Amino acid sequence: MSNGLKIGIAGLGTVGSSLGQLLETKAQTLTKSCGKDLTVTAVSAANKDKDRDFDLYKAAWFDNAVELAEKADINVLVELIGGEDGVAYDAVKAALLRGCHVVTANKALLAKHGMEFAEIAEEKGVILNYEAAIAGGIPIVKAMREALSGNKISRVYGIMNGTCNYILTRMLADNMSFEDCLADAQRLGYAEADPAFDIEGNDTAHKLALLTSLAFGTQLAADEIYLEGITNITIDDIHAADELGYRIKLLGVAQKTDTGIEQRVHPTMVPTNSLVAQVDSVTNAVAVETDLLGELVMSGPGAGGMATASAVIGDLADIAKSREGAQHAPVFGNPVKELIEYKRAKMREHKGGYFIRLSVEDKAGVIANIATHMADQSISLKSIVQRAQNGGASDYNQTVILVTHATTEQAVRDTVEYIEKEGYLTAAPQVIRIEDPDKA
Amino acid sequence: MSNGLKIGIAGLGTVGSSLGQLLETKAQTLTKSCGKDLTVTAVSAANKDKDRDFDLYKAAWFDNAVELAEKADINVLVELIGGEDGVAYDAVKAALLRGCHVVTANKALLAKHGMEFAEIAEEKGVILNYEAAIAGGIPIVKAMREALSGNKISRVYGIMNGTCNYILTRMLADNMSFEDCLADAQRLGYAEADPAFDIEGNDTAHKLALLTSLAFGTQLAADEIYLEGITNITIDDIHAADELGYRIKLLGVAQKTDTGIEQRVHPTMVPTNSLVAQVDSVTNAVAVETDLLGELVMSGPGAGGMATASAVIGDLADIAKSREGAQHAPVFGNPVKELIEYKRAKMREHKGGYFIRLSVEDKAGVIANIATHMADQSISLKSIVQRAQNGGASDYNQTVILVTHATTEQAVRDTVEYIEKEGYLTAAPQVIRIEDPDKA
Repeated sequence: MSNGLKIGIAGLGTVGSSLGQLLETKAQTLTKSCGKDLTVTAVSAANKDKDRDFDLYKAAWFDNAVELAEKADINVLVELIGGEDGVAYDAVKAALLRGCHVVTANKALLAKHGMEFAEIAEEKGVILNYEAAIAGGIPIVKAMREALSGNKISRVYGIMNGTCNYILTRMLADNMSFEDCLADAQRLGYAEADPAFDIEGNDTAHKLALLTSLAFGTQLAADEIYLEGITNITIDDIHAADELGYRIKLLGVAQKTDTGIEQRVHPTMVPTNSLVAQVDSVTNAVAVETDLLGELVMSGPGAGGMATASAVIGDLADIAKSREGAQHAPVFGNPVKELIEYKRAKMREHKGGYFIRLSVEDKAGVIANIATHMADQSISLKSIVQRAQNGGASDYNQTVILVTHATTEQAVRDTVEYIEKEGYLTAAPQVIRIEDPDKA
Repeated sequence: MSNGLKIGIAGLGTVGSSLGQLLETKAQTLTKSCGKDLTVTAVSAANKDKDRDFDLYKAAWFDNAVELAEKADINVLVELIGGEDGVAYDAVKAALLRGCHVVTANKALLAKHGMEFAEIAEEKGVILNYEAAIAGGIPIVKAMREALSGNKISRVYGIMNGTCNYILTRMLADNMSFEDCLADAQRLGYAEADPAFDIEGNDTAHKLALLTSLAFGTQLAADEIYLEGITNITIDDIHAADELGYRIKLLGVAQKTDTGIEQRVHPTMVPTNSLVAQVDSVTNAVAVETDLLGELVMSGPGAGGMATASAVIGDLADIAKSREGAQHAPVFGNPVKELIEYKRAKMREHKGGYFIRLSVEDKAGVIANIATHMADQSISLKSIVQRAQNGGASDYNQTVILVTHATTEQAVRDTVEYIEKEGYLTAAPQVIRIEDPDKA
């Protein structure tokens, strides 16, 4: 068909190669459902000579992705290079400026430059799709941009990093330390050699920034996210959570409050019988709470060549089915001009339940003192458990685990600070927020 | 805007009224995200004088839905009348023939006449959307028709009837009988005065028929569904399942096998730690298993005025954003001409695990006899538990609970038949299929 969709793929790593291969093997199916052919007409990658599973000869080769974006005979650029700047940025911008549609899986790039890209895309009347950028194969962007039309969203949250979820799941399942699980994740290819970006929560934060804009019609504000990774989570926390009826998950949460919008990424206790608690290993999940629909939860693979390529193909199919000159759905759900400025809610005013684990000297009056400090800050306790710590060296130490009813971050921070000053803590206190997905 | 979308609503019950109201209160938001106004220009219902929450005066009133479909100044008909034939059928057909888009929440109508409607819609180049017809607010049609482009689906299954899920959840939570839960569901408005259609599985079957076509590119075959309702499920089954690590859910399952496609609706045991097991009360869930994506699970409200209206609004927004003369996504994912004939897999060749509960006389040799019958049919047992039944009258009875490894329906039916002939059963045997969503 002469009016087929001509696709340029920039970046031929795992996802790019899977995509190239699938567009060949699934050509017939896609032509049928899209009403036109989807053909890869141009590719670029760092190394032309690497063995790849699909036939490059039909496509024009470009050593440089930007040159591909500027000059290749394409209708849509698929950016799979990665990186928040550099070639990825230049290529996407060049393609949009030229009036090419763009599909990208690059959350870091979008979190930083999404507003600029959206503006150009609107101006040029082209589509910028990024389903693969958030929670891999889960069609959350489509759900939020299209299916939830007319819904007012009050909260969106999710498990959006497979590395972290794998580690947290494994710690409980196999009673392993954080460090051992991380090492295993690296061995299995679930974690990078330098895992900081995943386990410190940055990757989740990028995805959350995009969700926040889609949910609340605000400008992207990826730098305004409260960030806590999972490096601090011990096997003791995991066990304590389990006993209390919770699982620990690294959640990204965006939520409207009286003072603005909270964007936070931190280890979170969720009830064991909630849906997100059952989302294990590298699987991702995103939940959206709205005025009309109530709660929608979607779960699926968050990464992997095939799952990511699946999301990219969905994006390409939408572009293939779109009509030249048609009004396209705005990149972040609303026209750029109408996106409102992001107003950050103060983290200290965050309201929720808290899990507090304290290591204390085994002496009279400590519990009374802790309870008094809690009462002073008007913190109401749901449960308090005291017990001897295991092992020889800490025979004289006790663990005190407190679970609060809803209170404020400020009250908890103040309380912990006062308790630390008392001098009976034998280790740094642990504080983990509790999110009750079913009772929001 | 002169090129706004003109909507005719046929049927002003709970959903229709919610919809009318929402299109007014959300007008600004919808105009912004769709790029045009969405206006109700015509309505019809049985009773004009009933008090409704939105202003009918702006819309033209029709006593007759078919007349509305034929004559009103509309671009899209929203059919919310219900019923698999009659006025709903006539109105939808009239609208399509006239070149009007159609949105409907009517699964019974589509399950019966979907092929005819799809053909007309294609011929006339109009859209037939039905997101609300399957699992209420969950955007499963959008996911399957659009996001999963290029994916080959191997299985789709779901909890798609809120009445059944409410009853099964409540039985376990409050240790209540089926009958008491049903009565409560009726009091709370979760079940109809005549609940047969829900609890016998027919409603789930209608939704499953639509999913099957979307998943496998087959013609609708709603009459070819193996059907078992939940009326037979006792509190003993619920407890036995719980002890074995399962929940009982009414699932609709469509699955490719060597001999065809299974379409089956029946009470099913799913592992307690699976996602679908945690989907409680009136909430619905649908899971799709594919070659590229792996497993996608979506959960959300399956009914209710607002949730259903939300799905209808999503459908309307898609129509508003579509372009006149554009190629629209085929109604069932593939052009009608290319839908292949449905080939039913033999239920007797179904493979899976089975839970078998037998009430037997307390006498020597019974267990040995049961085990021998199982072995004769090459059924391998995962567990077997025998215990005295509670209560006075059955002091001399024993309950035997067998859980099988994967076997065939034929083998189980034969075994149960042979065991029944032995004469030691004191009540009808119970057989419940086990589905392992995480091990497909």
